[in-house]
Amino acid sequence: MKTTSDKNRLEAIKKEFSQGFIAHIGYELMDISDGVAVSRLDVRHNHLQQDGFIHAGVLSAMADHTAGFAAFTLIPEEKRILTIEFKINFLRPAAANQIICRAKVLKAGKNILVCESEVFDVREEAEVLTAKAQLTMAAVSAADLTARPPA
Amino acid sequence: MKTTSDKNRLEAIKKEFSQGFIAHIGYELMDISDGVAVSRLDVRHNHLQQDGFIHAGVLSAMADHTAGFAAFTLIPEEKRILTIEFKINFLRPAAANQIICRAKVLKAGKNILVCESEVFDVREEAEVLTAKAQLTMAAVSAADLTARPPA
Amino acid sequence: MKTTSDKNRLEAIKKEFSQGFIAHIGYELMDISDGVAVSRLDVRHNHLQQDGFIHAGVLSAMADHTAGFAAFTLIPEEKRILTIEFKINFLRPAAANQIICRAKVLKAGKNILVCESEVFDVREEAEVLTAKAQLTMAAVSAADLTARPPA
Amino acid sequence: MKTTSDKNRLEAIKKEFSQGFIAHIGYELMDISDGVAVSRLDVRHNHLQQDGFIHAGVLSAMADHTAGFAAFTLIPEEKRILTIEFKINFLRPAAANQIICRAKVLKAGKNILVCESEVFDVREEAEVLTAKAQLTMAAVSAADLTARPPA
Repeated sequence: MKTTSDKNRLEAIKKEFSQGFIAHIGYELMDISDGVAVSRLDVRHNHLQQDGFIHAGVLSAMADHTAGFAAFTLIPEEKRILTIEFKINFLRPAAANQIICRAKVLKAGKNILVCESEVFDVREEAEVLTAKAQLTMAAVSAADLTARPPA
Repeated sequence: MKTTSDKNRLEAIKKEFSQGFIAHIGYELMDISDGVAVSRLDVRHNHLQQDGFIHAGVLSAMADHTAGFAAFTLIPEEKRILTIEFKINFLRPAAANQIICRAKVLKAGKNILVCESEVFDVREEAEVLTAKAQLTMAAVSAADLTARPPA
Repeated sequence: MKTTSDKNRLEAIKKEFSQGFIAHIGYELMDISDGVAVSRLDVRHNHLQQDGFIHAGVLSAMADHTAGFAAFTLIPEEKRILTIEFKINFLRPAAANQIICRAKVLKAGKNILVCESEVFDVREEAEVLTAKAQLTMAAVSAADLTARPPA
Repeated sequence: MKTTSDKNRLEAIKKEFSQGFIAHIGYELMDISDGVAVSRLDVRHNHLQQDGFIHAGVLSAMADHTAGFAAFTLIPEEKRILTIEFKINFLRPAAANQIICRAKVLKAGKNILVCESEVFDVREEAEVLTAKAQLTMAAVSAADLTARPPA
């Protein structure tokens, strides 16, 4: 059973989702729970590439950020998430009015978390998988991040 | 020696670089030639993540787009570039006022081009490698892209 | 309903699984059907690395080959499969007496097929996911492969 | 200047290169120094796939193991290397009598090391790049590896 402390923790994480770059693009958190996060983007002209499809960079940033927040739910409060690396396949061009990303943690180690993100093109007939990513996240001490400039 | 036709082709490709998502973020093309492209981003608050570093999504979109344009220079005029997949490692957090991406084509096949992108954090003392990506691009007939909706 | 021709095709593909490197290591095909393949390896000393775990190279070769055969089932008879690229995460060290790989095709394009492989450490209590890969395969004309040396 | 202790360390690492799987396949260490390793494989029938090319699994295992040993040179004596993940692109089929892998460390963090491996097909006219990999390694306490079974 979820304690108040757990609920407060999720609420605190939720508030961090849309800042800086993420707010600028317009990604929104739809749902978050232990090891899982779902986000959405209402597609505008500002998200397209030269041929009118949603830019691969929009899909990959979404896969990265959403997985990072899925990982965020499984680490101690004094830690932060940094992306170590990710890989993403684009299965078919995306061109819908909305895209949705579903991310989950495959393995939560103490310092390293492996995640997976699926990005769907929300078409009239169905949600179609447009991209799939495999991501490695680091849980880093917050003190380390602020105490010294990155080397 | 470069013919006028080659120069015209590079000029046409240059004009396509900053549209939609890319213009929205502010990536700029610095240099482009056969199989090579260099881009730059002047960093603003809109490019940061929750801890004040440049968002991994900003770096990965830059790696993807710049490599796509490096590939663009090596395909026939009637073809377009789509990203099949990429993988990116983040070596150290990026926090400078400017980042630069240098992309090159490692192997240009007829339909598939393999590229590499390096993203540098432009610090006072030096350019520091912050991310490195390996990317696979498809050269796709322009007619195919417009004639039918993506399956 | 499967026609005799389909069954013959799967039988022909099955016979190709264990040759050269694959036979040398001892990978065996357990099951194959449209877009799916399952393989197994009985672990010997020859599969280990310096600390007694199954070598990452054993797991990645298995992920690659099994996915290649899942893709093989979805292409025309006159074509062959070559691996374009793959990415694999090792979630936890593998040390069981047997490992099993389950591969499936996520998207079967005409020339490019995207696959996924999961490798399991078969422990007494349960099968435990030890590695997960995302792979891109090319369907290549058999004539192209034999007519000229690779460039 | 190299101290005797450094030289002894490199000698100790060298001795670990060819064991189990690696000895079984026949990979040999050619050269190793701080952050760099080079290996070789004399190609036999046992390394081929169904169309007579060197199996992608042979190339990827070589890229992984050689990078692991490049990383090994940069960590404290009481630590061991485990592969977190890697990604590899196959640029062109390999079919020579020998392949060579050159690996180097791009970034050596305390716990995480990012490496790069290039695999060359040693043809009569020249060494040709056949595969390129980007790899993430973990430096793990030796005590942790032996004290408890992997979770």
